[in-house]
Amino acid sequence: MTTPGTSTKPHTPTTPDAPEAPAGLLAALDAYETALLANDLDALDAAFVDSPGTMRGDDRGLLVGHDAISAFRGARGGVATRSLTHVEVRPLTEDRALVVSVSRFAAGGQGLQTQLWRRDGEGDTDTGPRWRIEAAHVTGRPKAVDTTVWRAVGDPLVAPTAVGPLDGLTIAVKDLYAVPGQPVGAGNPTYLHEAPVETTAAPAVAALLAAGASIRGVARTDEFAYNLTGRNAHHGTPPNSAAPTRLPGGSSSGSASAVGLGMVEIGIGTDTAGSVRVPASYQGLWGLRTTHGTVSRDGLLPLAPSFDTVGWLTRSPEVLLAALDATVPPMPGPDDAVDATVLVVPEELVALVEPDTARAFTAFVETLDEPVATVRLRDLGIPAPRALQEQLRLVQAAEALAAHGPWIDAHPGALSAVVGDRFRAAGANDPDATADAVTALDAVRTTIRGALAGRTLLFPTVPGPAPLLDADARALERTRTATTAMTALASVGGLPAVSAPAMTVAGAPVGVCLVGGPDTDRALVIRAGRMLSDQPAPGLPTVSVVR
Amino acid sequence: MTTPGTSTKPHTPTTPDAPEAPAGLLAALDAYETALLANDLDALDAAFVDSPGTMRGDDRGLLVGHDAISAFRGARGGVATRSLTHVEVRPLTEDRALVVSVSRFAAGGQGLQTQLWRRDGEGDTDTGPRWRIEAAHVTGRPKAVDTTVWRAVGDPLVAPTAVGPLDGLTIAVKDLYAVPGQPVGAGNPTYLHEAPVETTAAPAVAALLAAGASIRGVARTDEFAYNLTGRNAHHGTPPNSAAPTRLPGGSSSGSASAVGLGMVEIGIGTDTAGSVRVPASYQGLWGLRTTHGTVSRDGLLPLAPSFDTVGWLTRSPEVLLAALDATVPPMPGPDDAVDATVLVVPEELVALVEPDTARAFTAFVETLDEPVATVRLRDLGIPAPRALQEQLRLVQAAEALAAHGPWIDAHPGALSAVVGDRFRAAGANDPDATADAVTALDAVRTTIRGALAGRTLLFPTVPGPAPLLDADARALERTRTATTAMTALASVGGLPAVSAPAMTVAGAPVGVCLVGGPDTDRALVIRAGRMLSDQPAPGLPTVSVVR
Repeated sequence: MTTPGTSTKPHTPTTPDAPEAPAGLLAALDAYETALLANDLDALDAAFVDSPGTMRGDDRGLLVGHDAISAFRGARGGVATRSLTHVEVRPLTEDRALVVSVSRFAAGGQGLQTQLWRRDGEGDTDTGPRWRIEAAHVTGRPKAVDTTVWRAVGDPLVAPTAVGPLDGLTIAVKDLYAVPGQPVGAGNPTYLHEAPVETTAAPAVAALLAAGASIRGVARTDEFAYNLTGRNAHHGTPPNSAAPTRLPGGSSSGSASAVGLGMVEIGIGTDTAGSVRVPASYQGLWGLRTTHGTVSRDGLLPLAPSFDTVGWLTRSPEVLLAALDATVPPMPGPDDAVDATVLVVPEELVALVEPDTARAFTAFVETLDEPVATVRLRDLGIPAPRALQEQLRLVQAAEALAAHGPWIDAHPGALSAVVGDRFRAAGANDPDATADAVTALDAVRTTIRGALAGRTLLFPTVPGPAPLLDADARALERTRTATTAMTALASVGGLPAVSAPAMTVAGAPVGVCLVGGPDTDRALVIRAGRMLSDQPAPGLPTVSVVR
Repeated sequence: MTTPGTSTKPHTPTTPDAPEAPAGLLAALDAYETALLANDLDALDAAFVDSPGTMRGDDRGLLVGHDAISAFRGARGGVATRSLTHVEVRPLTEDRALVVSVSRFAAGGQGLQTQLWRRDGEGDTDTGPRWRIEAAHVTGRPKAVDTTVWRAVGDPLVAPTAVGPLDGLTIAVKDLYAVPGQPVGAGNPTYLHEAPVETTAAPAVAALLAAGASIRGVARTDEFAYNLTGRNAHHGTPPNSAAPTRLPGGSSSGSASAVGLGMVEIGIGTDTAGSVRVPASYQGLWGLRTTHGTVSRDGLLPLAPSFDTVGWLTRSPEVLLAALDATVPPMPGPDDAVDATVLVVPEELVALVEPDTARAFTAFVETLDEPVATVRLRDLGIPAPRALQEQLRLVQAAEALAAHGPWIDAHPGALSAVVGDRFRAAGANDPDATADAVTALDAVRTTIRGALAGRTLLFPTVPGPAPLLDADARALERTRTATTAMTALASVGGLPAVSAPAMTVAGAPVGVCLVGGPDTDRALVIRAGRMLSDQPAPGLPTVSVVR
């Protein structure tokens, strides 16, 4: 042990460098703090070493590379006003120093920053600060609750009503279900404000409580569940637990993020056009959309009743199965039946995915030790994806308007632009086309169900990884269109669909989807679980050394 | 910009070091992770450089010095099971490297660690790892809510009932008050389980809601408020927001920590024997115990009604005054009266404090620009601190037993050891002495109140800084005894008391307390606010350089 030389000095603006700190370092720290508070993106970019090895991490994950850090900052929108109260400097070499600082926020609370600084050149007013950050680890001001994920949380918020197989597990309930003691907010503050406090749990919620689970909280949703991104203009965007620079997926966004972040074991969601499958795929989770009509939708705010289903998000197939079994008691028979089905990859759906995802999917299928056939949907008598998508779009729009149009009309300005536009577009659909789609739904559903007898479909859940946080509205609309072309088959068919975390594309998760005939929910989960248990375990850490 | 050499390799146990990582570093990282999961305190101590400049920080604050880190670990009790999934190594010199690692927790969620490692000697199996940590910044797995601070949280949990001067402010309500939609838990899970859901806010809570504030959540309390440490055997210990190695103070512990952490602006507490004043002092907050009987205690679970008072904790005197004014509309008169009172320091109370605190208090008094006289309580006709403390102890015990004895008897084993022992001790008090104390209370109160006419007392709120987190039960009992000797005067007198964050002792806050006559609450807050506004502003950061 050595006795280090220690100096503690006030940091004054006229002599910004305490004598022992390396020349220019504290001035660079000051300049960085100033740029942060001003959200001066150029200055912040310049404050970090322009290298693919540069790092920035916080409670949402680690970003590696100057570009990733810059993109994150562009989407963040500034930090809360803070000032440094305590700075510890550890000079390491002539050109490097570790700086650990404590910040106090104007709105209360403290934060902590650790930064590795590097001097690269002498610098002057033209070339900017000569000290730059190579690595930063940030702990922001503590929040009582992440309000992008949750509307209400408790320990527990609602206790179990009995002991059972879900003892000790916690659940996040999408803010569309009746939870005793809570209003239903539907992702819209105006709606929440008017909503009555519920006294009885929705049956889908009650089933889990009766199996021993407790409710941790009420989780955010896209407004009226009519979106797939997870971006909520009123409450912000929940974090994508698997890919910090990407959107979480929706509309069961809060439920998915709560599961991915490890805050609960089970997220209750809904899936109309993909609202469980999409966030499951985006966050590397297990998700099940149940067979339409199998789980009661009482106490659930509708979006489009012809497609609305109860679903769950979990981190493992075992817990997914447990949630299903607690809700739909297993019956003998169907499991064996589906185990005997042929696993088929529908060519038209794989054709819709992005090239990297298609490659990853091909590689995944090659690892399977069971026969997998490629089929054409048209050869099975199933309408083309675009036709199914249109069927879904028209009927969903009509039913969403029937469910919420009067409230929306009575509350001008209450909806966000994105979801408001969606409802307006729904109102502009051709009435004749809508009527045809409504009329045809039963027949199309029957056709699809018939075609799935003896078959289980396997395909990527969505076209690719989650869009980046800073994607613009137009890009997101394109993604939505590409996505519902893939999710429409199960929605229109009223079929169960499992999304399993099978692939990594561009460093982010993409799920594979299994779709089976009606009431094969349980068999699908078991089959997907077996399929992925054959995959190599995550094992030891990736080690990356940058000199 | 340079193009760094990058290598990404799996980290296998047989060849634990990727070629480019400095020799022995990854093995040291492995050994450290193993020691963490085993909570092997000796190995963890050895893993950190034994120097006063060594650092460890997380969301509860920054520890500087090997001793502080070691003490923290001793009180922590291990980390959740985790494994590293991603390790970034940045060799800086031959003997130093920065390691940033992402961990995945078995119970879900990810964490992030940044460590500066230093090689000090070659090392071998006898001398331990040659690489040691000089600085660590840790982000643990995300929690939906800090259940040591909160029982329930919402956005908001309860909305304001009107607009007013508290618009936009949020409150933490101690889990003794009726909050609509919530049961009262009183810091005990068995009690909570049986408690009915409240439908109406307690008047003290309703007053803030009517002034525009919203309820952020229900905050933890020591069991039945019958403790001053903040340590709750059922729910854990809320963090001390100002001194991470110390206890938060109680019994209004969650309310205080929520304010100190910046999660809310106002903490509603109760003060019977110091339960607002003590956590205010320990966490560097503003705290007001109101004049006994001034604020309605309807909807508040009693501890000892002769002493129970409503109180608030805030980060500023302005918000404290706003909370008071929203609850007790200001009347003309008393302010002026108290401004004319003489500020007096009671010799017997200052004699009870620890030497460092006495010195800090003397220094604080010297900064005041108003005359401060020293008085002897006995010259004012006020009983000695120990006599007041005994008066408080006996009557409080009798009333606490009357309030909760039947429930406790009916629920054997429901209480923690510490609070259970306190109730048992209460039952063992001499009945005659108790009867005498009850009989004498009114007269003593009248005497104290008379003695305070024209005077405002000024003294340290408590004997010293908060006890350390790892203090044992006996040490805490000594602290409690020393503390209530100082807090008893205002409790027995039924007097208002403000604790203001005026001192720093051993790096931790200690408050000064102003006690005035009945209904001088408002004047006390204003006077304390003026007193501290004359103190030097916190200003620029402390900079400490260790080479």
